[in-house]
Amino acid sequence: MSRIQDLDTPALVIDVETMERNLARAAAYAQRHGLRLRPHTKTHKIPALGRRQIELGAAGLTVAKTTEGEVMLASGTPDLLIAYPVVGAAKLARLIELARRVQVTVALDDARVAALISGAAARAGVEIGILAEADLGLLRVGVTPGPALLDLVKNVLALPALRWRGVAFYPGHIKDHAAESLGALERLRHAVPAMLDALKKEGLDPEIVSGGSTPLLWDSHTIAGVNEIRPGTYIFNDRNTVLSGACGRADCAATVVCTVVSAQDGRMMIDGGSKTFSSDRASDGGDVLYGAIDGDAGARFHKMNEEHGYIDLARAERNYRPGDRVRVLMNHVCTAMNLHEQVWAVRGEEVVASWKVEARGKLQ
Amino acid sequence: MSRIQDLDTPALVIDVETMERNLARAAAYAQRHGLRLRPHTKTHKIPALGRRQIELGAAGLTVAKTTEGEVMLASGTPDLLIAYPVVGAAKLARLIELARRVQVTVALDDARVAALISGAAARAGVEIGILAEADLGLLRVGVTPGPALLDLVKNVLALPALRWRGVAFYPGHIKDHAAESLGALERLRHAVPAMLDALKKEGLDPEIVSGGSTPLLWDSHTIAGVNEIRPGTYIFNDRNTVLSGACGRADCAATVVCTVVSAQDGRMMIDGGSKTFSSDRASDGGDVLYGAIDGDAGARFHKMNEEHGYIDLARAERNYRPGDRVRVLMNHVCTAMNLHEQVWAVRGEEVVASWKVEARGKLQ
Repeated sequence: MSRIQDLDTPALVIDVETMERNLARAAAYAQRHGLRLRPHTKTHKIPALGRRQIELGAAGLTVAKTTEGEVMLASGTPDLLIAYPVVGAAKLARLIELARRVQVTVALDDARVAALISGAAARAGVEIGILAEADLGLLRVGVTPGPALLDLVKNVLALPALRWRGVAFYPGHIKDHAAESLGALERLRHAVPAMLDALKKEGLDPEIVSGGSTPLLWDSHTIAGVNEIRPGTYIFNDRNTVLSGACGRADCAATVVCTVVSAQDGRMMIDGGSKTFSSDRASDGGDVLYGAIDGDAGARFHKMNEEHGYIDLARAERNYRPGDRVRVLMNHVCTAMNLHEQVWAVRGEEVVASWKVEARGKLQ
Repeated sequence: MSRIQDLDTPALVIDVETMERNLARAAAYAQRHGLRLRPHTKTHKIPALGRRQIELGAAGLTVAKTTEGEVMLASGTPDLLIAYPVVGAAKLARLIELARRVQVTVALDDARVAALISGAAARAGVEIGILAEADLGLLRVGVTPGPALLDLVKNVLALPALRWRGVAFYPGHIKDHAAESLGALERLRHAVPAMLDALKKEGLDPEIVSGGSTPLLWDSHTIAGVNEIRPGTYIFNDRNTVLSGACGRADCAATVVCTVVSAQDGRMMIDGGSKTFSSDRASDGGDVLYGAIDGDAGARFHKMNEEHGYIDLARAERNYRPGDRVRVLMNHVCTAMNLHEQVWAVRGEEVVASWKVEARGKLQ
């Protein structure tokens, strides 16, 4: 078996022990609080890891795009949530094929989109589950709870070949446990029961109330009415998760091993930039940085081009020269995974497997 | 032949007529001013387009990584510049294999890196060209002109199996024609001849003086001593190029066709986000935006997640509903190309070819 030091760089490595601990912890949390766990696979994009999530008790898997769903069939999941409006002829055709293979549910926010899915499903003789997407503060997809949500649900109920299964929301506007976010979390704790009351007054009783995100993962049980969570990042965690307060550095399973390719006058360049990490930014309240260098809190990853990571060494704790290697904690592991053809599973310094990132680049 | 409206979205489309005009214009400019044109293929990542650049008179092609070089061999280029220090055993092995096939030159900034390449090349019985990389203001790779540059060149000259070919620099700190950049350009016009004078005083006469970037492309002939340019983006151009003043919107060959998947209360979501466009930001002096919606200057692409492009419609010039399509001019076409498995060549509304982005994700 090879070791990390033998890998060509940049190499995205996954510490299997940490990943397994993250998976087990979330599975135990969901079970303890009676929450269905339907992990979003956009983070790992690897069917074998989807299978592991199912083995550990996940009720199904979540994807954003129909092409991701096709890839994720190989996980053996019996149930797939497409947490994204399916719009367009090619995507409808793919959705129908998925529905012939597994139980499929789509989250959407527009009766016109529901009608097109209904038409395609009815023609094909399949049934598609629908979650009505509500906006609870992110201002992304989703209708406002109240009349618009009631209308959407009633429209779905009236359409053939659709099965209304409940409501979905995504609290992506709540990033951490800072005061502003806590206010938003408190509003969420009122908004969800109010939304469900309004539905129930009309005789509409959702089987599924799907929320959850990794920053809020461990708060999910404090939002009354939520019975399903869809965290994605929790499998690996990343610098954003650490900054959110939802985990510590020791809970981060994924890092990128890079090589120093240039060291000049108080700066060095590593062989990974926006094509390796994505250009997603993150700040700990100070400067925007593009990642954290393991074991050297003073080395600042302050800028990137496609292939260059700029590390300011003015306050670095050690010296570097070309050929040295560093491990970098990514800001955002989901977008980084999408950039790598394969990643490496490691135990300590030993490389135990290579995984193809099969759903990378599945945009449609 | 299919039409753009038949493509599943998001679809990155290349207007062939505009691309050909861009290629011809740069080739004519280089010829008129006696500049070797060695395009950086990191923008397109497609061997067939590298071949087209060679057909139009390019002296060779540029890549950043050895794995990109392997892919770009299929272009038939007789000459390859790896504009990046080659560090590490796996990359050295790849470099040697490349050098058995074509004339290869590496730009580097450290005598230790040169010594390792020399050792590998000598053992294999191949010769590798070397450009000494100078830093002229970007503070990325490169030694400071003066004693450090002289030392580097002398070290290279003393090493076996290396052929010193000249100097390289990358003026990536000059983004546009604003006052600050014009000052930096003026300094560059002095720094390059001064650097060359210092080399010549030591009897060192570089065959190649390689600079150039797309924002400065049309200024290249005003920097005395430069005899080679390595623009990449010019083949397609992008929103950054427009903002730099180096081209107009009509010179942009690449756009992404997206579908509206949600339209609610003054906002809409399109089916492309950071996995489609990259999260590279750009500002026209006002807000940071993630792209420009063709034909609707008031629709503001102000935020993104992986699969969601957030379009603020408060000042939009038309109405949208799910299923509508928009074409989006990317901020940065190089990082966007890296995210697409294939792109589509179009003439007007007709799709004339699909191109696999063969060097996407080649990080090593």
